[in-house]
Parts: sequence; C-alpha cells; structure tokens
Amino acid sequence: MNTSRRFATSLALIILGSLSLIALPAAAQDPLPSWNDTGPKQAIIAFVARVTKPGTPEFVPVTHRIVTFDNDGTLWPEQPLYFQFEFAIDRIKLLSAGHPEWKTQEPFASLLDGDIQRALARGEQDVIDAITATHAGMTTEAFERIAREWIRTKRDARFKRPYISLVYQPMIELLNYLRANGFKTFIVSGGGVEFIRAFAEDAYGIPPDQVVGSSGRLKYQMRGDVPELLKMPAVDFVNDKDGKVVGIQKFIGRRPIAAFGNSDGDQQMLEWTAAGSGPRLAVLIHHTDATREWAYDRGSRIGGLDKTLDLAVAKKWTVVSMKDDWNAIFPKQ
Amino acid sequence: MNTSRRFATSLALIILGSLSLIALPAAAQDPLPSWNDTGPKQAIIAFVARVTKPGTPEFVPVTHRIVTFDNDGTLWPEQPLYFQFEFAIDRIKLLSAGHPEWKTQEPFASLLDGDIQRALARGEQDVIDAITATHAGMTTEAFERIAREWIRTKRDARFKRPYISLVYQPMIELLNYLRANGFKTFIVSGGGVEFIRAFAEDAYGIPPDQVVGSSGRLKYQMRGDVPELLKMPAVDFVNDKDGKVVGIQKFIGRRPIAAFGNSDGDQQMLEWTAAGSGPRLAVLIHHTDATREWAYDRGSRIGGLDKTLDLAVAKKWTVVSMKDDWNAIFPKQ
Repeated sequence: MNTSRRFATSLALIILGSLSLIALPAAAQDPLPSWNDTGPKQAIIAFVARVTKPGTPEFVPVTHRIVTFDNDGTLWPEQPLYFQFEFAIDRIKLLSAGHPEWKTQEPFASLLDGDIQRALARGEQDVIDAITATHAGMTTEAFERIAREWIRTKRDARFKRPYISLVYQPMIELLNYLRANGFKTFIVSGGGVEFIRAFAEDAYGIPPDQVVGSSGRLKYQMRGDVPELLKMPAVDFVNDKDGKVVGIQKFIGRRPIAAFGNSDGDQQMLEWTAAGSGPRLAVLIHHTDATREWAYDRGSRIGGLDKTLDLAVAKKWTVVSMKDDWNAIFPKQ
Repeated sequence: MNTSRRFATSLALIILGSLSLIALPAAAQDPLPSWNDTGPKQAIIAFVARVTKPGTPEFVPVTHRIVTFDNDGTLWPEQPLYFQFEFAIDRIKLLSAGHPEWKTQEPFASLLDGDIQRALARGEQDVIDAITATHAGMTTEAFERIAREWIRTKRDARFKRPYISLVYQPMIELLNYLRANGFKTFIVSGGGVEFIRAFAEDAYGIPPDQVVGSSGRLKYQMRGDVPELLKMPAVDFVNDKDGKVVGIQKFIGRRPIAAFGNSDGDQQMLEWTAAGSGPRLAVLIHHTDATREWAYDRGSRIGGLDKTLDLAVAKKWTVVSMKDDWNAIFPKQ
C-alpha cells in the first residue's frame, strides 16, 4: 500500500469511526421492541413520521413537539393503591409516635390499624388530607431525600421489586423514541409534583422542570442566615381532570400535540390535545392484563376508566391493550 | 494526482466540511463581544469554566446547570414604565368604549386621561388590577396573538424601535454562551407569564415552559364541541420577592446555580441561588448609563435597587455596571 493509499484508508476508518458515534436513523432498528406490531405501535410510528418530515404541511418544528404523559397507571402501576399513598402510610406509621391524636382521627386511625379499605371508603379528600399532612412541615430538600430513598428501597408487595424499577418498559422505550425524534417529554399527573420529581429523572429521563403535578403551598423563610423553603400543610393546586389542562397552560404554556393517559382523570388533557390543529395523537393505556399486571377500568376506585373509554372509541383515539399490544410490562431484572 | 491521492483529498475535504458544522470551542472566539474585559465578564467566564470541567470536585452535571434570569431591567428595559403596563394602557384605550365605568374608576380614569403619574401614585395594587382587567375575558390563545402582535409592532417612545428588538445585546450573548455550555436558561419574572411567553422564544430563545412569572386564574370549558382555556380576572400567583423562590421550586423544581437580577424584587432569588452548595454565581445588573439607557437604583418607583445593592456588596456578588461593563446595549439595527 503506498502512502496516499494508506492515508486514504486511515481517513476512511476515521470517518467510519465518527459515523458510529452518530445515532442511526430510527428505521435501522426497532425503537419499540416491547410493543407488538399491532395498531397502537403502528399509529405511534406513523404519527411521528408525519410530524417530523420537513417540507410537508404536517411538519411540526421541534419547539412545538410537546408530549404529555400521565404518571400513575400510564408510566407505572397504580394498583392496589397509588404508590404515593403507600408512601404516605409509611410516613404516618413513622410519624405516629409524635401524633397521638391520629389514633382516633380518620383516616389516620384506620391506616395505623392497617385497614386501608376503611380509610379509602371515606373518599378522595381523606387521601389528600393524609398525604398533605405527611408531606408538610419539612423543607423541600428534606422531602426530596426522604421520597427518593423510599422509592429506591420500598418493594412492591406483589411484584417484589423496588418502585423505582416498577415502570412500564414499553413506555420507557416510547419516551426515548419520542425524545430521539425531537419531542420534549412532560409528565402531567394528579400525583404530588415533589414526589414524582424525586424519581422521574432516574426512572424516565424527565427532569424536574418537566414534571407538572398537584402541589402544596410553600413558604420561603430564613433560618438564621440560611434561606429555606418549607412545605406547608395546605393544597395549592390539584392537577387532575380540568386541572390537567390548566396545569399544562400554567407550567408548559403550549398545547401538546400528543398525550398519553389511562383514566377519567386524563379526559380533559386528551380532549385538549386532540382539539388542536394539525396532526394529533391521543392515547389511552387500557389495563387488560390481570396476569402480568392488573385488569380494571369502569368502576375502579383507583384509575377508573369509564366516560373516557367511550370517548376514545367515539373520537377514534388510540387505545392500547396492555395484554395484546405489549410483549413486556416491566424492565428485565 | 493519482486515484488514491484524489480519494484522500476528497475524504479530507469531507472531513473538513463536517468539522465546520461542529461548534468550535468557546475559546476560539469571544462569546461575549458586547462585554468589556472587566470584572463581571471575567467572573462569568471563570464560573462557567469551573462548573464545566469534568473530573473536578466543582463539576456540575448538565442536568443541574440551571440558570434563572429576571426579565424587566435584566433582559430588557423597564423605564419609564414596565412595557407590560404600556401594553395594559393600550388595551384599556382599545377596550374603553365597552367600559363606560372606567371614566370614573381609578386607575382607569387617569390612564385614559394620559396621566400616568396620577395612576401610578396609587401604588402597585392598582397596576396589578389594571393589568388583570385587560388580560382577562379571552382565551389564552387569543391573548397570545394580541400580545405577540403588540410586542412586534409597538415602538418604544425614546428608542424608536419595536419592543421585540429592545433587548440587551450583552444578555443575548450571555444566554447563548450559557446554553452552549449546557445550561438550561429560565426566566423568573414578576411580569405576567403569558405576556413574556408571547415573545421570549423569539427574543431570547427561551421556550414557554422555561418562563416562570406571575399569573391569573384559568378556566377550562367547552364551547360547544371545542375546549377552550379562559383567562379569568383574578390573580393566581405573584412571582416576586419571596414568590420568586416559591416560583422556582413550583416550576423548575431544582435550585439554580446561577441567577441574574437587577432590583430588590430579585433579592430572594439571588440569596437562594447563592446559598446552595458548590460554585455559585449571583449577578446584579446595575442601571448606570443615562446616556445609552437609564440610570436608577435606590428609591426608583420601578426597579428600585436598595437593600439588594448593599447585600450584593456585603456578599461579594457580581455587580454589572451597564456603563462600564457593556460596550453595547441593544442589538444593531
């Protein structure tokens, strides 16, 4: 090989080496391997192809590729109890020594007795009260440490694994796929924003500022020379139903072009997303797999899906059957 | 030239062509040409070098490179009146035919008479009331169109140019420089969030979800089959003073490592930013140039800078003198 031939070969190797650092086009390998090749996967891929093709009337610039995801029941399970409610129960047990009044005060009394059904029977407001009580009276940073530790270590009773890894593998692939196609991914959840932020970056690759959720009031104060933010025992904002659309506008400020939910609490977010101009994707995750996860919809106390399921059929939204459309539920351990 | 020599040359040209598409390191050319080579520029560049050097104890991962900017008086002027207040006055004039009661109701009456000083004499609450009144009773999308059009076309009385281009050139360079170094740039302003979002992406490259501001209440409703978000005449959140730290936590969820402000309304944001662990940058923009912009600080009704100026000196925060540290104020026309 002469010198210039060797030079050419070296250059070619450098170029090939550089190319391997560049992300291959999505078509080169299946970006959604945990999704069966059924309707929902085809609808998602077709939608992404439409909005990302430059020079077409349906092209959506990157700055407008906003996609929102409900969390409980959409990115991770919510049965038999919202995980954040499990967290609140653990906090109540831990804090009960300092709160003798909880022994006779509902829902604390029932929760301390281990009678979750009796506590729940009193309705959603009691759940919110309990969560509010156990989430307040500390700084935002102290709360973040407590929640982060709990999610990393507490194991789900049925699936015997820490909540941090009890996320839906097909949705993780979907988040990555959408981000690789220029989408900005947001969580829009009825759950507490500070609870979700404690794990969303590790679990989903979603940073704290891209989490919209329900929140308690905060108070800024000086402890001596040191400023701190205190979590107060009062609800500031409930990000559910109509509140999800209000939350989208307050925190994101732009209408999503795609949204994913699983319950009647997501109806308005899906409606609002679907009603914008241009290509739209509204998706319901339907819990149909009692063997691998849970099966529930109409009449479920948690994650009830009734009116929104009818609406999805009427409006031709995409409905994902976890049993039929997903070949895996959780990441491999 | 033989074949393989030609091949080598072609490859070299391809490589050089590809390299030109890659951003050059910041050192290759001055990223802040409108900043004089004085203390503030040196402090900013030294800070960025510290937090971006991998393998050092002071290295900050990209996900934690949060920087917040006040808007009025920090990214664009605020004299002789906040631009949003100018906008509200124009709205009041336009809407006054439908509001005969404004002829006797303050501050509307004074504003319609053109007596801005008399209107302002009644204090900040009146300003908020006037802005709230003129910003409500329409959908969020209608408001965005109105505000966007006004900012593109309304010309500043002194500088004779549209507000959209009346932004500080050194701060535009700074925003670009920080983003090129992996920072996520946020606005944290006492101004109305929907007003700022109407121009922040075009003017500063900051998308709507990275704008934190004061806000009014929103209502989600169906108009027939079409969902809409209505702006209500009620204040929801005031993002000023203590509220700026609360706003940072509510909307960003992570403490900034750098913050830029110019008035006493920014004290708590700067305090909170500076009090975190690791390298911190707290910067005050001091309006010292009556010739090229405005000169004001202590006792100014708008953008008053009193206690925070003392604090900046005591805490050794960086103070930018617009007269001495900036060689340009606005972008070239």
